[in-house]
Amino acid sequence: MSKQKLSDLKIVVIGGGTGSFVVLSGLKQYVHNITALVSMADDGGSTGQLRDELGVLPPGDVRQCLVALSDSPKLRDLFNYRFDDGALKGHAFGNLFLTALEKMSGSFVDAVEEASELLAITGRVEPITLDKTHLTITTPDGKVMKGQFTAVHGDFEGSQRPNVSLDSPASINPAAKKAIEQADLVVIAPGGLYTSLAPSLVVDGVKGALRDTTAKLIYVCNLVTKPGQTDGFAVHDYASEIERFAGRQLDYVIYNDTPPSKYLLDRYAHGGEYPVSVDEQVLKNAHYAAQGSDLVAKQMWHNSSESDPISDVRTFIRHDPDNLAKVILNLAK
Amino acid sequence: MSKQKLSDLKIVVIGGGTGSFVVLSGLKQYVHNITALVSMADDGGSTGQLRDELGVLPPGDVRQCLVALSDSPKLRDLFNYRFDDGALKGHAFGNLFLTALEKMSGSFVDAVEEASELLAITGRVEPITLDKTHLTITTPDGKVMKGQFTAVHGDFEGSQRPNVSLDSPASINPAAKKAIEQADLVVIAPGGLYTSLAPSLVVDGVKGALRDTTAKLIYVCNLVTKPGQTDGFAVHDYASEIERFAGRQLDYVIYNDTPPSKYLLDRYAHGGEYPVSVDEQVLKNAHYAAQGSDLVAKQMWHNSSESDPISDVRTFIRHDPDNLAKVILNLAK
Repeated sequence: MSKQKLSDLKIVVIGGGTGSFVVLSGLKQYVHNITALVSMADDGGSTGQLRDELGVLPPGDVRQCLVALSDSPKLRDLFNYRFDDGALKGHAFGNLFLTALEKMSGSFVDAVEEASELLAITGRVEPITLDKTHLTITTPDGKVMKGQFTAVHGDFEGSQRPNVSLDSPASINPAAKKAIEQADLVVIAPGGLYTSLAPSLVVDGVKGALRDTTAKLIYVCNLVTKPGQTDGFAVHDYASEIERFAGRQLDYVIYNDTPPSKYLLDRYAHGGEYPVSVDEQVLKNAHYAAQGSDLVAKQMWHNSSESDPISDVRTFIRHDPDNLAKVILNLAK
Repeated sequence: MSKQKLSDLKIVVIGGGTGSFVVLSGLKQYVHNITALVSMADDGGSTGQLRDELGVLPPGDVRQCLVALSDSPKLRDLFNYRFDDGALKGHAFGNLFLTALEKMSGSFVDAVEEASELLAITGRVEPITLDKTHLTITTPDGKVMKGQFTAVHGDFEGSQRPNVSLDSPASINPAAKKAIEQADLVVIAPGGLYTSLAPSLVVDGVKGALRDTTAKLIYVCNLVTKPGQTDGFAVHDYASEIERFAGRQLDYVIYNDTPPSKYLLDRYAHGGEYPVSVDEQVLKNAHYAAQGSDLVAKQMWHNSSESDPISDVRTFIRHDPDNLAKVILNLAK
């Protein structure tokens, strides 16, 4: 594929906040036709408060995607700024921006559009659904966790491969459906397997759109396991879970083949997080093409949610946006 | 003065939020070199909470001036949008915007600059002082009221012409000084005589700048009296109080000569507010030129602070921006 054609690729990225942020930040340096489809399951922290108190759709993950695609450094910083005191404590400014616009216009889509224009973003950001919904995770052993905030902190107690559902039916946003159907590549970003990716994939109509599209489906595997949920998972375990929720086979799986340094692991990994293991034999025989590469960001990440009093637990071991984008785009050649 | 020259006039408007809003909204249709110098005395409502909780300079009056000068209707509405529920209740979005920018940059001036750019304003907005201060009103009878919020609701109990001071010394913002010195016209907007205008005029250096400038000094008199503070005041009483605080004589006084309709008075005036009386004989003999005109807005005003739980008491009888601008600019011919 020529360079010209590469920059014209239509790429859809499905995910939540942090993982999509990394994928989008990298890709936007090379392609301009990017659509971020964003999980609407978030109900913790600043976002959760705004949902509860003002009845809006969750702005947090959308904000991160907008910031990733923005070409305005000042507004990017402003959107990620979190108030550190008083009644506003923990609120990211961008969340308040989206909330005010949604309350004014009565439409979250209009709010995102307005913010997109202001932030001068490359590409588009679309909620995966416009329905207000909450996720429910039920383990095979019958443990039930309701809501993303609860689920993120949930321990499956040894039970694996849970059911993920939405507590009120949610249908795919028509703009998200169209983007998937017209895409050349659909990338499933790294992120919370059961708390962010699955809640997007189980939205009514997503499976159908993924089945109908001619796009190649790429999954970028997480770097570390999540204690209590994916302990001991290897790359192919993640991939197989994604296929279960997506209802179709993956074409490519991208994984990190160079473990994070001990320094990073010691300093930034939360207790119980371990590098996702790689069983090369299994990957070699898989129906998808597995692509290993050195994907760990060497630069340290600042936790933008450190002043959020009810912040999610998050790892600081992250993908390197540029390396990741190059691997993704290489698969499209 | 030719039309070309009129549009090049350098005009400074001194005031608080609402009165300056009206003057600026009108003037910006005709002139582009406008500098709004804004009172920093506000400490009530959304602004007061932000000052108390986050230690910022008061954003509320600055926000109103920015909105008046903005050419972006959508952002104007967004800046004036007030959250109506939860922990954010009563906060104007623009106040949060200025606060976040000030907290990020450490500079209120930078925050105002950034907001000015975003809102695509005509002219400039400058805080009259960059010092954090609170006003104190002391009546001749010895009653003391501290803080604008308290003072706005204060009753002088028949005592008149109080002392107005700032409880920690405040010096004029150098940009405000320069604007006054270089102006062709300085307009003192209508507004709270003791709670908004006097606190600006008594800032150290304002008197000096007003004395040194070759600009004509214009005062736009209020439409109605404030119960407990300016009961029975006629136009020349207001003008004389302005001169006391400004430390110099006025060149022009603009007043309304057509009382508001009974409908407006009945429906919108707060108890105890009466049209400011006009003693034509006194005005004819005054050292300033007094210019009467029909200045009452016929259109009804929406109270943008109605959802503010600790909103100021405000009259709904307002000046008509366009009529007022025409009278002001006519004096410059």
